[in-house]
Formats: sequence, C-alpha cells, structure tokens
Amino acid sequence: MTTSTALLFADLTGVAVFAASGASAAVAKRLDLFGVVFVGFVAALGGGIFRDLAIDEVPPLAFADWRYATTAAVTAAAVFWLHPQFARLRTTVLVLDAAGLALFTVTGTLKALDAQVPAVGACVIGMLTAIGGGLGRDLLTAEIPVVLRREIYAVAALVGAIAVALLDSLGRADTLWLTAAAVLVFVLRLVALRRRWSAPIATLRPPKTGVRGPQP
Amino acid sequence: MTTSTALLFADLTGVAVFAASGASAAVAKRLDLFGVVFVGFVAALGGGIFRDLAIDEVPPLAFADWRYATTAAVTAAAVFWLHPQFARLRTTVLVLDAAGLALFTVTGTLKALDAQVPAVGACVIGMLTAIGGGLGRDLLTAEIPVVLRREIYAVAALVGAIAVALLDSLGRADTLWLTAAAVLVFVLRLVALRRRWSAPIATLRPPKTGVRGPQP
Amino acid sequence: MTTSTALLFADLTGVAVFAASGASAAVAKRLDLFGVVFVGFVAALGGGIFRDLAIDEVPPLAFADWRYATTAAVTAAAVFWLHPQFARLRTTVLVLDAAGLALFTVTGTLKALDAQVPAVGACVIGMLTAIGGGLGRDLLTAEIPVVLRREIYAVAALVGAIAVALLDSLGRADTLWLTAAAVLVFVLRLVALRRRWSAPIATLRPPKTGVRGPQP
Repeated sequence: MTTSTALLFADLTGVAVFAASGASAAVAKRLDLFGVVFVGFVAALGGGIFRDLAIDEVPPLAFADWRYATTAAVTAAAVFWLHPQFARLRTTVLVLDAAGLALFTVTGTLKALDAQVPAVGACVIGMLTAIGGGLGRDLLTAEIPVVLRREIYAVAALVGAIAVALLDSLGRADTLWLTAAAVLVFVLRLVALRRRWSAPIATLRPPKTGVRGPQP
Repeated sequence: MTTSTALLFADLTGVAVFAASGASAAVAKRLDLFGVVFVGFVAALGGGIFRDLAIDEVPPLAFADWRYATTAAVTAAAVFWLHPQFARLRTTVLVLDAAGLALFTVTGTLKALDAQVPAVGACVIGMLTAIGGGLGRDLLTAEIPVVLRREIYAVAALVGAIAVALLDSLGRADTLWLTAAAVLVFVLRLVALRRRWSAPIATLRPPKTGVRGPQP
Repeated sequence: MTTSTALLFADLTGVAVFAASGASAAVAKRLDLFGVVFVGFVAALGGGIFRDLAIDEVPPLAFADWRYATTAAVTAAAVFWLHPQFARLRTTVLVLDAAGLALFTVTGTLKALDAQVPAVGACVIGMLTAIGGGLGRDLLTAEIPVVLRREIYAVAALVGAIAVALLDSLGRADTLWLTAAAVLVFVLRLVALRRRWSAPIATLRPPKTGVRGPQP
C-alpha cells in the first residue's frame, strides 16, 4: 500500500465516520431517507467543501472525486437501516469520530499551507475543515452547534492545526511528525471525553450575597 | 424567440417562482419587507450562487446579471403586498415550483458537466442547485429544511440530474433530450405531490412483543 | 498615518465591533469560551469571507491577513471575560455597530465594483458584506436573523451601497464622497434606532367588517 493509497483510505475513513454521525443525528430528528443521506453528506463533506472554496481548489474534492460522495451516501444509508445496532456502537463511533477530527485537522491545515495561506489563516481553515461538517449537521437539524456549547472538540482541532503550522514553519512537516500531530488531536479529544473536560462558560449573573426572595 | 432567449426566460421564471415560495414563508414568519425580499432572494438564487462558487464561475450569475436579482426582488415584494391573493394560488405555485425544480436541476447539472466536474459530482451539484434555495429559505426562517423531512422533492431532482449526466456521457445532451429530462423531474414531482409519496422514515423504536411496564 | 493605514485601522475597528456583538449573543446563549470566540469570528468576518469568495479573492482576507482573525478572537475573548461591564456599554456598542455597518458597506461595494461585478450585483454584495456576519451569528445561535425581522439595518446598508455604485459610475468614488456615503449609512442607522423606524410587516389577516365571535 503506497502512502497516497494510505492517505486516501484514511481520508475516506474520516468521511464515513462523519457521515455516520450526521446520519444518526438526522434519524433522531425523524428525517426521511433522503434527509438522512443529505445530512450525512453535509457532515462528512461540508468542512472539506468550505476548505476547497477558501483555497480556490475547484471543483471541491467532494465533487471532483466520486469516492467521497459515494462513501458518505452509502454510510449514511447504512445507518438509516441499521441504526438500532449502530446506537449500541456509541463508544466505537466516538473513537472513530475523534480519529476523523484528527485526520481532517492535519490534512485541512496542510492543504491550506500548500495553497500559500499564511499560518494563522491556515490554522483557522484546518480547524474549520475538521468541525465544519458538524456545524452543517447541527444547522440542518435546527440545533445550536454542539461544538460551540461544550467539550474540548474544536479546541483539540485548533491545537493540532497550530502544531502542523509550527512543524511546517520548521520544515519538519514529514509523515512522522504529521502523524504525531494527528495522534495529539486524537488523544486530546479522547482524554477530554473521558474526563469530561469542557471549555469554561461565562457566568451570566455573578452570585450575590444576602437573602433572596421566593420568586424572581 | 431564439434558444438562448427562451432559456433566459425559463431561467427567470424559475427565479420568480422560487422567490415567491421564499417570500411566502417569510410573510408567514412575520418578517418585515426587507426580510421578505431577502428570503425570496436567497430562495431564488442561493442554489445557483453555491453552484457558481463550486465551479468557479465568479462572480456568480446572480450578481453578474442584474435581471436575476431584480426578478427575485420584485417578485418577493409583490408577494409581500399581494399575499392574501397569492395564498389562493397555492396549486399554481406548487406546479410552478415543480417547474422551477425541473429547470434548475437540468441547467445546474449541465453547467457542472461543462465545467469538467465528473458525473457523480455534477449530479450532486445539479441537485443542490435545485434544492439549495429552499434549504437557505428554511435555515433563515429557523426551520428544519422541509426538503429533508418529507416528500419526493430532492429525489426527483437527483433522478433528473442522473438522467442529464447519462445523456451527456452518451453524447445526447441536445435540447430535445434535456427537455425530456426536465419533464421527467416535473412529472415525478407532481405525481409525488398528488399521491403523497414520501421517502421512508426510520422506525426509531422497533415494536416489541410482550407486556410493557406502566411508566418508563 | 497614511490613507491605507487609516483604512486598515477603520476596517479592524469594524471587525472588533462585530466580534463584540457576536460574542455578546453567544454569551447570552450560554456557549462556552470556544463557542463565544467562534461566533465572534463569524460575526466579524463571515460577511467578508462571503464577499471574497463571490469575487474570487482567495484566500479570503480573513485568512490571508492574520490581523483580522486575531482582532476578532481577542475581542470576543475579552467580551467573554468582561461581559457584565460590556452590557453597560450597550449604547456605545450600538453606535460602533452602526459605524461597522457603514464601513463594511462601502468597502464591500467598492471591492465588488473593482472586481468588475456589475452595479446591481455589487450593491447586493456590499450589503451582504455588511449584514452577512450578523446573519451567521444568528444562524449559529438558532435565531431567525434579527436583520430580517425589524429595524432599518440592511436597508441602510443597501442605500449606502447604491450611493457607492452611483458615485463609481459618475467617476466620483474618491475618499471624500465615499466617506460621505459611509456617514449616510451611519446616520441613517442611528436615526432609525432613535426613532424606532422599521420596515413594514405584512398584515396576515386583513381586518374584516362585521361582528366577530368571542373565541376563534
């Protein structure tokens, strides 16, 4: 198996995992078969489509290579029919989702750097590649995006993107180090899940001293 | 009337119909005049703007040709003032909407194929051109997109897009056959409406045998 | 201070103001720190990203110049920690927001005209540059965009965009006249706020003559 075959295989694994997460959300919202496939498609490929538009790689890979759309559609349809079994795989899905997050962060940041986007912008694009599909999934199912509400998810992606940009500026963006960056995102995400780490939430009303009335 | 004049006329008819559907949804949500025109604009032109960004035809036609934005805005404003009469035209609107769907599917798929997008991607872009405006309309009015929930709508577009891609690969993408593809989408949509066809919805809880406890 | 330095300073002021408005909305929705920064980023830079994609200036300025993303992120984070004090600045924020609206309208329309977009399309792009961030903010926090519901906000931007397009067609798009167009948007917005001007809302049920029953 050559490097590029390995990369394609890894990429399509990420697509499948994100398609499954989108399809699950759509099933829970009682969407029909088409809606489930469509939300799966957006969850799997939305981040990459945005990335490709931003770096002017047109048509976006999701449309240029049939394997991407097909992988997303077949996976989402499978979830539609198999979702009771799928629900029992919840832990597996979370682990695969963390792997997808890690992979899309690294490839998204790299592609942006290759397209001559400066480092800060490339980090943002890399993070958006990784979380964009989940954002689209939540917008389509009329939810405030979960990535904005809790858990170290986007932050893990951002840390990985910064690592990739640093490696690139040091001329060390080779397979070994990039894999290390992906592992960093993956581990960070899993540890955050395990320990229920979250980013802080602002206190809307600072606690007051003194007696409080029965009803506000 | 030349072919290109006929095509422009058909295109603007689609724009007007989708603008009317968006404006109606916005009136129902109590948006103000500007909101009604804006949602009409997005419903009419959102799909095409996405298509043009994806195939790198910039600026998108919606901005490059003033007749598109003007048609959308004038139609939406007319709905704003005339909507009680408009509501009585519901059947007419559904028929015109099916015509718009058919037209945008065929032209969207063709434009993507002309821009060298491979067949699978071109079908997805063609379908998104046709349903993208409706998605935007529903997102702006904070609804789960209706196209994802019920009825054979996007599926009719997808079937038409596949037909166009097949015709193109056979070298038969001439006016006659393309018109036939559009008629296929149009008829499929109208029959689905008439017979209340829908895509299947997943069963969330498969029926269980045996006695069930009083309250979970 | 040279003209281009002044322009950059003004542009970044607009970014900061819109980031603050997005961050405030996110704090109110109980998003976590990352969510607050992200919504601030979208509110500040979303309109400009759309504009740059539409005129094929890639990568969009928000990714190409690190000062934009940094200004947005730092401002949003500051709001996260300081928001009780920030709430007391409400009037100041509204005035700054009007200034941001004015500025983004003028620069957005100009950039579109410079990219050879015809006048009508350039006006729409200019307006979308100014209101796009607020639309993104409201979509991410699952609200019907406020700009579609009330107040002369987008309309002020549209008037300014038309003024810029007229000046450009008359060959008078110099600093003096462009500043006048920005002031026009700014004043129009402030007067609308002050006088509670709104665009009209359609009457859903025209009043009927005759006696009405007690309960519908």
